[in-house]
Amino acid sequence: MSLVVVGSIALDSIETPGGSVEKALGGSAVYASIAASYRTPVRMVGIVGEDFRDEHRAVLEARKIDCTGVETVAGGRTFHWKGKYGVDPNQRETLATELNVFEDFRPALPEGWEDTRWLFLGNIDPELQLDLLNQCTGKPFAGCDTMNYWIEGKREELLKVLEKVNLLFVNDSEARQLSGESNLYLAAREIMSLGPEIVVIKKGEHGAFLMTRDLLHIAPAFPLEAVLDPTGAGDVFAGGFLGSLASDGKVNEDNLRRALVYGTILASFTCEKLSVDGISAREVNEIGERIDRFLEIMKIEHL
Amino acid sequence: MSLVVVGSIALDSIETPGGSVEKALGGSAVYASIAASYRTPVRMVGIVGEDFRDEHRAVLEARKIDCTGVETVAGGRTFHWKGKYGVDPNQRETLATELNVFEDFRPALPEGWEDTRWLFLGNIDPELQLDLLNQCTGKPFAGCDTMNYWIEGKREELLKVLEKVNLLFVNDSEARQLSGESNLYLAAREIMSLGPEIVVIKKGEHGAFLMTRDLLHIAPAFPLEAVLDPTGAGDVFAGGFLGSLASDGKVNEDNLRRALVYGTILASFTCEKLSVDGISAREVNEIGERIDRFLEIMKIEHL
Repeated sequence: MSLVVVGSIALDSIETPGGSVEKALGGSAVYASIAASYRTPVRMVGIVGEDFRDEHRAVLEARKIDCTGVETVAGGRTFHWKGKYGVDPNQRETLATELNVFEDFRPALPEGWEDTRWLFLGNIDPELQLDLLNQCTGKPFAGCDTMNYWIEGKREELLKVLEKVNLLFVNDSEARQLSGESNLYLAAREIMSLGPEIVVIKKGEHGAFLMTRDLLHIAPAFPLEAVLDPTGAGDVFAGGFLGSLASDGKVNEDNLRRALVYGTILASFTCEKLSVDGISAREVNEIGERIDRFLEIMKIEHL
Repeated sequence: MSLVVVGSIALDSIETPGGSVEKALGGSAVYASIAASYRTPVRMVGIVGEDFRDEHRAVLEARKIDCTGVETVAGGRTFHWKGKYGVDPNQRETLATELNVFEDFRPALPEGWEDTRWLFLGNIDPELQLDLLNQCTGKPFAGCDTMNYWIEGKREELLKVLEKVNLLFVNDSEARQLSGESNLYLAAREIMSLGPEIVVIKKGEHGAFLMTRDLLHIAPAFPLEAVLDPTGAGDVFAGGFLGSLASDGKVNEDNLRRALVYGTILASFTCEKLSVDGISAREVNEIGERIDRFLEIMKIEHL
């Protein structure tokens, strides 16, 4: 079943010790949509300016992402983020953030998308996330991302979103900030009490875990000997996760475990190249081979 | 087959937000020996003073640990460590370190132990580790632990040890310090080039991985909702790991994977109580149940 993805569409300028790009395709909706597109049809909602060129659209088209929901603002400029990574890829410095057309983004579901059954709300203002949830008539399974900025600055609005969504993706520090618990398993439990029946906590190079009332599943990250550009890895993880669930068409224990693996594997690909290059043109068998390798690495025979 | 364990025997005074103990049983040899004893007979080499009391010996006797190699110095005092943990159990402050009899420790294998096939060199001066290795006539499979203090202060001696041992246990920061590589997989590879054919990197709450020329195996930590006292967890991990290998009697892929799980599970127990209380009196079925739970948490069906 198709997944609707809402979030930022950006042109990213990224500096790393191993290479740089200027105004390359980026943004939470873009990373998540590309990742999800390997498992399920994707419909994207976002906003761009006139500087969003054919070469950028071509990447999305190649992944058969339906961009009917992407508004182009005449005379406007696309959201631009500029950042720099250190030798340690965990060290990231933001050099510039120009919201541009994204500042006035009011996401609207195109006609016919209101009854979507699967929804990913990328990391945007919780007021907009709430607005979009209210546009849905089909009681979708909704996964949501957020960040420290909203947890601190729009906590009340975020809490309203959490009451309505089924799944929250957060990283470890966001989970602690949101819950007030330093132990991540207690933090996940606390977040579940705020609404989402599924909480996925992302720990970057240390992997991720998902918790429901009945299930705890932990997966390490796929081992990488070199990380070039981790931009968007969290969005790719979430997109891969929800794309897998939407493809399975049903939320149950096996499908959740499978989704965690897909998210993990796709996130590993995106770290290996600049911008979306690590995930924009993968062959399905490459993904399958890495999943097999991942299972091999964690394999435990009967003890 | 029996495992010879060499290391510190200590009386630890530990303060945590959840409780404190004064001069309780501790030390790398003690934690590792107790852990290993669940899988294999253990022979311990160490040194204590007259303040090492019957109640301390009783814990080791209950685990059937052979203490023939433990020297008691008349009129001497046992190594004493005093430390304090914060609400975040990763925050540890050392309040006092009194080497006492440990300062003059020259470990000697008792008669009949020289041909041991399995050896764990706990975190002590690499000169002493080397001395002990040279006392072994049976070409043992030797696992070794070390720390930042020796990596910095006795690097050359440590490198000589690494040439002779089969396995090195280090934590993530020690691996980076020893290898000069920030990526942990590259660090493990670099350390293998220094001698050990097996490198195990411990990442605390983030789990551990082992690398050989042919195998990479990653395991997350067992999920704990409360960590009371992580003292000795690394020693317990190493002891559990080598106890499992020695019990299997052979180093191969399956046995290494199994050893990593045993180390992981025993380390989780020790964090739950003060001093050695978390591991000193476990029932074998408790360990088995936690292993089953661990496998359940990581279970992935065919994708």
